[in-house]
Amino acid sequence: MTGIRTMLNPKTTAVVGVSTSNPFSPGNVIFRKLAFENGIRTYPINPKGGLVEGVEVYKSITEAPGEIDLAVISIPAEYVPKTLIECGEKGIKAVIVVSGGFAEIGGDGVDLQSKIVGIADEYRISMVGPNCIGVYVPDVLDTFFLPSERVARPRKGHAVIISQSGGWLVERLEEFAARRVGIAAAVSIGNEAQTKVTDFIEYFGNDDDVNVIVCYLEGFGEGDGRRFVKACRKIVVEKPVIVLKGGESEAGHRATQSHTSSLAGDQAVAGAAFQQYGLIHARDEDELMAYAKVFSFEPKHMKSSRIGALSVSGGHGVIASDEASPYGLEFPQFSAEEQSLMREVMTPAYQSIASFRNPCDLTGSASDIDFERVLDRMLKIEKIDAGLLLLLPYAPGISLQIGARVANVSKQQAKPVVAYVPDLEKYEVIIRGFELNGVPVADTIEEAVQMLNGIRKRTKFLQSIGAC
Amino acid sequence: MTGIRTMLNPKTTAVVGVSTSNPFSPGNVIFRKLAFENGIRTYPINPKGGLVEGVEVYKSITEAPGEIDLAVISIPAEYVPKTLIECGEKGIKAVIVVSGGFAEIGGDGVDLQSKIVGIADEYRISMVGPNCIGVYVPDVLDTFFLPSERVARPRKGHAVIISQSGGWLVERLEEFAARRVGIAAAVSIGNEAQTKVTDFIEYFGNDDDVNVIVCYLEGFGEGDGRRFVKACRKIVVEKPVIVLKGGESEAGHRATQSHTSSLAGDQAVAGAAFQQYGLIHARDEDELMAYAKVFSFEPKHMKSSRIGALSVSGGHGVIASDEASPYGLEFPQFSAEEQSLMREVMTPAYQSIASFRNPCDLTGSASDIDFERVLDRMLKIEKIDAGLLLLLPYAPGISLQIGARVANVSKQQAKPVVAYVPDLEKYEVIIRGFELNGVPVADTIEEAVQMLNGIRKRTKFLQSIGAC
Repeated sequence: MTGIRTMLNPKTTAVVGVSTSNPFSPGNVIFRKLAFENGIRTYPINPKGGLVEGVEVYKSITEAPGEIDLAVISIPAEYVPKTLIECGEKGIKAVIVVSGGFAEIGGDGVDLQSKIVGIADEYRISMVGPNCIGVYVPDVLDTFFLPSERVARPRKGHAVIISQSGGWLVERLEEFAARRVGIAAAVSIGNEAQTKVTDFIEYFGNDDDVNVIVCYLEGFGEGDGRRFVKACRKIVVEKPVIVLKGGESEAGHRATQSHTSSLAGDQAVAGAAFQQYGLIHARDEDELMAYAKVFSFEPKHMKSSRIGALSVSGGHGVIASDEASPYGLEFPQFSAEEQSLMREVMTPAYQSIASFRNPCDLTGSASDIDFERVLDRMLKIEKIDAGLLLLLPYAPGISLQIGARVANVSKQQAKPVVAYVPDLEKYEVIIRGFELNGVPVADTIEEAVQMLNGIRKRTKFLQSIGAC
Repeated sequence: MTGIRTMLNPKTTAVVGVSTSNPFSPGNVIFRKLAFENGIRTYPINPKGGLVEGVEVYKSITEAPGEIDLAVISIPAEYVPKTLIECGEKGIKAVIVVSGGFAEIGGDGVDLQSKIVGIADEYRISMVGPNCIGVYVPDVLDTFFLPSERVARPRKGHAVIISQSGGWLVERLEEFAARRVGIAAAVSIGNEAQTKVTDFIEYFGNDDDVNVIVCYLEGFGEGDGRRFVKACRKIVVEKPVIVLKGGESEAGHRATQSHTSSLAGDQAVAGAAFQQYGLIHARDEDELMAYAKVFSFEPKHMKSSRIGALSVSGGHGVIASDEASPYGLEFPQFSAEEQSLMREVMTPAYQSIASFRNPCDLTGSASDIDFERVLDRMLKIEKIDAGLLLLLPYAPGISLQIGARVANVSKQQAKPVVAYVPDLEKYEVIIRGFELNGVPVADTIEEAVQMLNGIRKRTKFLQSIGAC
């Protein structure tokens, strides 16, 4: 635990494996980031010495003056054990091994990996990797060996992403940034040789700054799957844990063998187990993004699977119904009386063309005030426990203020509301209006339905254990 | 047919239902577009006369001087029959009825709809609608009553979109524009009272400028479903027809009843029938977009379901395998010999860390030349019939030229290749490089797999009828 804490907030770092001839080597990219972009005191290390970016290069970790909190190692695999011993002798408690060439290549790599785990354990070093891209903590540090202009960095927020695949993690950073979901940390755990996903689950479970944890997993070592779900169970009442499992298909599972081969076994710990322990199981990347985004808003509970929907187009209601059906989410029919209650607050000219059969279609003629008033009445109908707004803002009567206006209505009520508005720059004022006022905005109708499904799944679990 | 041709290329138009007091009424929006944005000679019509945008308003269609090719009607439903008779007397052969308040509201609306169909038939008018937003033909005309700044217009191209839902169509225009798929026309068919989707299928089937047709359907009138699939069957060898059926779930089907209620029945004409007649059946909006985009590139045939994949990250290969599995697409294992043939063309320093077990992971260390050379060798392996490039361009060795470079390799070979690169502005040079050289780029791994699935489905159909 201390090692992880230090790793995520180091005062001094060292990068082992800078090059004095190639400014684009991974070690140099990492060094420049830590030293200059993150502004952390950082020692570059290379046995040849010399200068990098005008900074003196030390010939070994042991030669570097003063204490070091975190060492990032990016050198050929064969040299890693020796360097790790030096880190131990120096008293370094946190190490990230970026280098590949360990268990993922099989054969000798497996032995080499055992060896470095032995060394890390002996010196009580928290080691992340090997074969990883390390950690990113907004405003603190970034050990990714990817040039800054190649990878988006989401703003500071309350979600955490932990991934057994570095490439997958980089994609999520792009997506979280684009969808405006802030993160507290991102961790590429690589071969998970020593420090495990579970260690980070325990760490972030105790971090009050974190409100949702997202994991991409391909497999577990012997017994690790059980430890993982148990650790999650301890925190899921407080904060949702969302899991996407790569390799769930047989073909996908085979592919994991050439990727993170050390992580075979325990394949059974998935689906049913995730659900039993209260994790939110995402079936694909789209679901994962929907769940991550909606939970970053700390949504209200959804007491049943019954939704009331408002749209500007009947087609959207049809699509939403088709999307909701496989999730077991329903749009219950409104009684004639309930329909009248909503109809009577519509602008008189459009009362006869609007449909109040759920999903309701207020038509392209409706304006902001119609959506406000009808939503207010709809959310009060007892048979529904969530609101879905399908608000393609093309209709002339919809202003850019509709987001804030409608979100303010939903604030007054105890039911969760999500909105669908395409994530386009021209709708930014609408989307911001919604999101600043607590209504998450989905980029597709499917995503909006998935958001509600995530909320419902979680509430159902909490209900089952009497926690809500 | 003549009516449709005139509707899509009118020399003179009239808009019935402009307002002299409300510049934002649907009629006025349509008038401004036709008259000024499309530059078509257009008569504004309102029984009160007066001026709109400085143009003289005629009190009726019959009073307007000269011939009129197309009339767009946007007035309360009850006045539509009289106006339609005037159109007939004037000799107008194409009419778009934007107005709602017909079969979709039930009761009297159903009778009113029968009445206008009778009038249109009597005068041999091709009538689209009612309850629609009309047609958009790039560089020709746009009858949508949505302000220009609210809706994207894709560039001119070779795809056609036909939709029973106006809202759905507007969303697709946004998406086609964002994903750079050009269109030849977009048609909102509304209640489909007289002119049917099938009429447009027949029309565009004969239009050499069209290379793919995309339809959103919620239902068919009695016998219309069979007529539709038969019309499609006549053209699918020439050009793919992609269909998304709204209301496939029971809940969704119920929702169609409050939307386009005239279109009940024939619900059975879906899934299996689509396949039998050679249509490409999209299960959701994502699949539809993937198929539309890939076919707009007129891809090569894919002789089997076996794919070879190259990636920068093992995680991407795992995700691709999971996505491909439900579609029955496979990544066959490469023999030791095949692996060696690919390995030997890699940069020596990375030969040992790259994996050539399909999906192959060239790792984040690989550069443009590695992808070029390995792809070239891979596409020559007999057991695969398509190439999949999972190219998240974060790796320092990947340049912005990789798109064009790798696409040029794929040009030389008879197998289709698709790429995954996130659709971000910073990767625009890469994406353009791919697409200008014939390789469609997907925005997600899932979409790339769906693109290949679309190609495979079509090739399989063509193989089954001996057409390839």
